[in-house]
Amino acid sequence: MTLRVGVVGGGQLARMMIGPAVELGVELRVLAEDEGMAASLAATAVGDYRDVDTVLAFARDVDVVTFDHEHVPQEVLTRLVAEGIAVRPGPHALRFAQDKLEMRARLEELGMPQPDWAAVTDASGLGAFLDSHGGRAVVKTPRGGYDGKGVRVVTSAHDADDWFTALAEDGRGGALLVEELVDFTRELAQQVARRPSGEVRAYPLVETVQRGGVCAEVLAPAPKTGDREQRVTTEIATAIAQGLDVVGMLAVELFETADRVLVNELAMRPHNSGHWSQDGAVTSQFEQHLRAVLDLPLGDPSPRADWSVMINILGGPSAGGLDERFVDAMIAHPEAKIHTYGKAPRPGRKVGHVTVSGDDLDEVAYAARAAADAFLD
Amino acid sequence: MTLRVGVVGGGQLARMMIGPAVELGVELRVLAEDEGMAASLAATAVGDYRDVDTVLAFARDVDVVTFDHEHVPQEVLTRLVAEGIAVRPGPHALRFAQDKLEMRARLEELGMPQPDWAAVTDASGLGAFLDSHGGRAVVKTPRGGYDGKGVRVVTSAHDADDWFTALAEDGRGGALLVEELVDFTRELAQQVARRPSGEVRAYPLVETVQRGGVCAEVLAPAPKTGDREQRVTTEIATAIAQGLDVVGMLAVELFETADRVLVNELAMRPHNSGHWSQDGAVTSQFEQHLRAVLDLPLGDPSPRADWSVMINILGGPSAGGLDERFVDAMIAHPEAKIHTYGKAPRPGRKVGHVTVSGDDLDEVAYAARAAADAFLD
Repeated sequence: MTLRVGVVGGGQLARMMIGPAVELGVELRVLAEDEGMAASLAATAVGDYRDVDTVLAFARDVDVVTFDHEHVPQEVLTRLVAEGIAVRPGPHALRFAQDKLEMRARLEELGMPQPDWAAVTDASGLGAFLDSHGGRAVVKTPRGGYDGKGVRVVTSAHDADDWFTALAEDGRGGALLVEELVDFTRELAQQVARRPSGEVRAYPLVETVQRGGVCAEVLAPAPKTGDREQRVTTEIATAIAQGLDVVGMLAVELFETADRVLVNELAMRPHNSGHWSQDGAVTSQFEQHLRAVLDLPLGDPSPRADWSVMINILGGPSAGGLDERFVDAMIAHPEAKIHTYGKAPRPGRKVGHVTVSGDDLDEVAYAARAAADAFLD
Repeated sequence: MTLRVGVVGGGQLARMMIGPAVELGVELRVLAEDEGMAASLAATAVGDYRDVDTVLAFARDVDVVTFDHEHVPQEVLTRLVAEGIAVRPGPHALRFAQDKLEMRARLEELGMPQPDWAAVTDASGLGAFLDSHGGRAVVKTPRGGYDGKGVRVVTSAHDADDWFTALAEDGRGGALLVEELVDFTRELAQQVARRPSGEVRAYPLVETVQRGGVCAEVLAPAPKTGDREQRVTTEIATAIAQGLDVVGMLAVELFETADRVLVNELAMRPHNSGHWSQDGAVTSQFEQHLRAVLDLPLGDPSPRADWSVMINILGGPSAGGLDERFVDAMIAHPEAKIHTYGKAPRPGRKVGHVTVSGDDLDEVAYAARAAADAFLD
């Protein structure tokens, strides 16, 4: 009676569940968007995740359905639940990862620290927010944004007119999210895993470095972090996991300011900020996600080394595949752990990452950056 | 141009290459003996590895052919080489892992320390060896033995008569290998990886604990081992890898006596004595084997922790699968890394293993044994 996990979405997050699934002896099935996706080795079906019949047919043969991304529509998710299928995280949790306005409202109810925010439907509403926040703000489309898409810094009430026009044409009466532009010292991420029976395990707080709105580096644990800050971020992530009934991995992206932390974004799946755990933690976030959605006891999230640094490979070489750069990367940095996603390089696209672990942060970061650089032109 | 490795044999060694292959972005293809083998996820063909056309058809689509076991006949291997296919390790090396008499003769030429031995074809030859070695010896069939099969302790010239009879009926003029019964203090294993261009990397020397002729536990590194012993075993394994032109992983199983080490057996593939490296080393033996056979620079074989202990799950529960025991094992030992092979439990059969790493050997060994015990009745 092999346990079977079905993953909707065939990207690199599903791909990186393959290794842990093989080792545990869990059968991984993947509903991929297309042939030749990153998780193609485990892809047992290809189809549209927005089509309820496609997802339902896929889901009937597995013990639990989980996700590579958060884009499966609520109507599909609720239908699965109505059919008695275990969906983890469930639609009642995923809605807060799917809609940033719903997230802000719910986090406010939970008393979580977050930037000032408002729902605005026109330029005058945006202008009013700007007036009360020093003339600068961040506007976000509530749905569909990621890696900097659907996010815009504004300094005038009319800087989001195109989005307001699109909203009006859409006719569903939606709003944009506007948030104060936080003067942060750095960005952090706190991951926790939670299983249906309630157990929660927290990973070390990490620092994430963004470039152009995309995660470029992760330092684990976050340097110069005291016990108090780790305790606070663990409490925040645990409260969100419990308050939103998240099952599986939850990543809470945070702004650190001079005197506090503020919740930026949520992800209810394995997350780029946790890729270091494949090599740097006893239990990787991918194994942990499988355990959590199967309601198995969670693994030890402790780091295996004093420091781990993960560098994303963004874009890749202008010609050839990443494996044609293996020799350069491997010969100079035999300690570097190389992970590739089987995706064609495109400017700015995440096509792989490199992690190095050790006891000296400067050396570890240098080696990881140099090894990742070997994959770029 | 994705790199493609073809593995002949669909057992757990091929299975455990899947995770590293996925992460590197190497395409793994497996020629499995049957449907439903341990490496079924990557099995792209099912067929008889003794049939030259089957293996040839499989081999034509990959960059290099390597192995899950050492049983592919020389005539099949040499045909692949004649067709221009990269076979690593090659037949000229594998013959020494396939035939223990050839191995003993070649190791003697190389000046390697080993037990006294002889090729014997009848009871009188065996009797003469017994007379000169205190009346006790070990008789081995040169080919086909593993995990204690084809190995027998003898105290009389007639204790191997059945094997001599089989040899005579076989008609190929073969002999049995007889070796002195070594009074060893413990058993050790030294692994090295070697790539075609010559680079060699040595793993830490480990202690292996056998029960009933089967590996039960591995302690990495071998406790109470001095730098001198580590240097000696590294030199032995390196000399064998170079002398026999082994490419890929080589495991040298050793007897440690009061004052020296003696070569017991060789394996030219990932080996049970190196399973700890999946969790306990920077580069696992499975990733290292892929790198080596692809002639890529080798990874860092350094341990990630002071101690790692690997315990084989032998036999498994009398009813149900291993995953039905996950809860017991995981809840008590969240730090235990569980690996299962997708094989039906049978008495004494290796169906999985557990590894725990940490800085206190006693605690690590206790936790690993307890977690592995949770899978047995």
